[in-house]
Amino acid sequence: MNPNLFSDISRPTLLIDQQRVQRNIQRMAEKALRAGVRLRPHFKTHQSARVGEWFRPFGIEAITVSSLDMAVYFARHGWKDILVAFPLNLRQMTLVRHLSKLIRLGVLVESSAHVEALAGSVEGAVDVWIKVDSGSRRTGLAWDNPSSILELARQVREQPLLNLRGLLTHAGETYKSQSVTEVVQRFQRSNQRMNQVRQFLEQNGIDDLEVSVGDTPGCSLSDDFEGVDEIRPGNFVFYDAQMAQLGACREAEIAAVVACPLVALHPNRGEAVIYGGAVHFSKDAVLENGAAVYGWVVQLNEQGWSARTPGGALVRLSQEHGILRLPAEVFSSLAVGDLIGVIPAHVCLTVSALGVYRTLQGEWIETLVRASAPAEPA
Amino acid sequence: MNPNLFSDISRPTLLIDQQRVQRNIQRMAEKALRAGVRLRPHFKTHQSARVGEWFRPFGIEAITVSSLDMAVYFARHGWKDILVAFPLNLRQMTLVRHLSKLIRLGVLVESSAHVEALAGSVEGAVDVWIKVDSGSRRTGLAWDNPSSILELARQVREQPLLNLRGLLTHAGETYKSQSVTEVVQRFQRSNQRMNQVRQFLEQNGIDDLEVSVGDTPGCSLSDDFEGVDEIRPGNFVFYDAQMAQLGACREAEIAAVVACPLVALHPNRGEAVIYGGAVHFSKDAVLENGAAVYGWVVQLNEQGWSARTPGGALVRLSQEHGILRLPAEVFSSLAVGDLIGVIPAHVCLTVSALGVYRTLQGEWIETLVRASAPAEPA
Repeated sequence: MNPNLFSDISRPTLLIDQQRVQRNIQRMAEKALRAGVRLRPHFKTHQSARVGEWFRPFGIEAITVSSLDMAVYFARHGWKDILVAFPLNLRQMTLVRHLSKLIRLGVLVESSAHVEALAGSVEGAVDVWIKVDSGSRRTGLAWDNPSSILELARQVREQPLLNLRGLLTHAGETYKSQSVTEVVQRFQRSNQRMNQVRQFLEQNGIDDLEVSVGDTPGCSLSDDFEGVDEIRPGNFVFYDAQMAQLGACREAEIAAVVACPLVALHPNRGEAVIYGGAVHFSKDAVLENGAAVYGWVVQLNEQGWSARTPGGALVRLSQEHGILRLPAEVFSSLAVGDLIGVIPAHVCLTVSALGVYRTLQGEWIETLVRASAPAEPA
Repeated sequence: MNPNLFSDISRPTLLIDQQRVQRNIQRMAEKALRAGVRLRPHFKTHQSARVGEWFRPFGIEAITVSSLDMAVYFARHGWKDILVAFPLNLRQMTLVRHLSKLIRLGVLVESSAHVEALAGSVEGAVDVWIKVDSGSRRTGLAWDNPSSILELARQVREQPLLNLRGLLTHAGETYKSQSVTEVVQRFQRSNQRMNQVRQFLEQNGIDDLEVSVGDTPGCSLSDDFEGVDEIRPGNFVFYDAQMAQLGACREAEIAAVVACPLVALHPNRGEAVIYGGAVHFSKDAVLENGAAVYGWVVQLNEQGWSARTPGGALVRLSQEHGILRLPAEVFSSLAVGDLIGVIPAHVCLTVSALGVYRTLQGEWIETLVRASAPAEPA
């Protein structure tokens, strides 16, 4: 570790453990290889060209993003096969046309309005995925109404520039599971539903469709990918408290911690105040004993950070303040002006809020959100 | 209104109604004038040099910010009297020294560690406010233990460059009130407690202290500012769903709405999907019938936006998706690709997440967070 890594940190700063990140990537890539599925990692978690490069040694060439702007960013950084896993935004069709000429672009449709707008806009071929709602009730056509999916598939097939690539879902219900077993069951149930839809379409003359599935919990915990052609996990690159609580990762696999200055200590009520609030962490939570917890407390050390401090939790957030609940015995080793670490509840939002992060070797890593690393203003 | 204002919006875009903003500023400035208190508005809500200028016609010269970086930004934009209403961050003392030479800087202390670090760092005079916890249990020395406040005050007075300016609190408990009456009661109770502390200090030889109080709910709703020298509301510049729900503003005073592209419609379950998620709104909520609501739905129109669509609410957020609950009769007038408006639950976090906003006249307003307005990437 760079001995100056912590000494020059003066603001809430997201640290990542590059070794853990690379191991997380390797584990998922090897799993995909064993299962014979394409890993098309979701880059919305790290949002960084630099971290993107760490995927290349594992043969990753196709990626997923969550906005057209993110597709532009990664296209600029050399990625040639990009799927925008978000319902097609009809107000950005100029960008869709532009991207379709630049890369192998994949988009999602779930209505004839999407298909018509797409057919009227693109000049080159585009991969089209029909978004199927396999149970999460966020977006997509319902899996149990396959006739409407068939109708849309036929509409896509009528358009010469639209390459109907397959059926895509995100089994978001895995995130709300109560056990590891339930995650796996929900993930596999979603995959089975997708294959029922695929079979129905095949029986009706629409063949050669792939099935693409998402979600870090399911991809981390399941070993059975029957009927799946492509997986799109994203969060696994860093993991976080939500994933550890769900059992989707071990705590030792979490690769991101926010270093925060301690600005006030209140041992009498078992609380400390950090510089690190809702504008830094965003405001997703895990539930502990029915109460929202925005992060877990760790101690920074020469290796990076310690295991979770038992009972330590980020329990309240205002705009710039965070309130930590800490066990009494911790206070004797803390002073105002020290740094303390917090594992975020949901790292994707924290990355987006901070816009930049730093490895344990001291390298600043920029994201789409922030063009350059922060400098001490003067 | 600029007729092109909405037509070129393709991403989640925060719109502000400049007239409403200026009326909100005028109302608070006139109220402060009537009450004979200094209005030191909190600029953490708008975070913008441009909006800051709208305060000047009302004689505002002293401002509040929530970080040293924000102080640097506003100092660069001509503000000469800036209070950083956040516990002193001992890891940014170089910046404190720099600012102390540049402007009339105010900082908060609540421990001898703060006072010692400050005395050891500054080269010019600094205004020092003792942070008092008047009941909100976030930061500060407890109002009901005035001896510790007295001790800290004496310590500050011993330092020649530290100008003990007064006692400061934020009555954060007003935000959790159940009625307008309760807001006013809690605000005034906090003010009384602050004056009890001031009196105790006076009796012990520490005199000439000001009392500075915060919070938009209390300052919006109370007409009694007895014992108060300075008020620091921030949110009132825009207001939001939280403030309207609390009764701190009328809905017609809310000056900020996020315009979001509709990307999918699900009339069968009364929901629509917008491009506009947790990375745009952040994730604060108001509670409606016990459930979290992240924003209220309005229709954009030639005047800006309509009154709230009854029953329309932003009920779920993922990274980029928002799910609106909408009454059945609304769907017939909506199409994928339309824009719809959402009043954010907590506008301060939304401003910070988006980093830039736009007036109804089409002017882009930049903030500290984002250096320049977004351009369509190509």
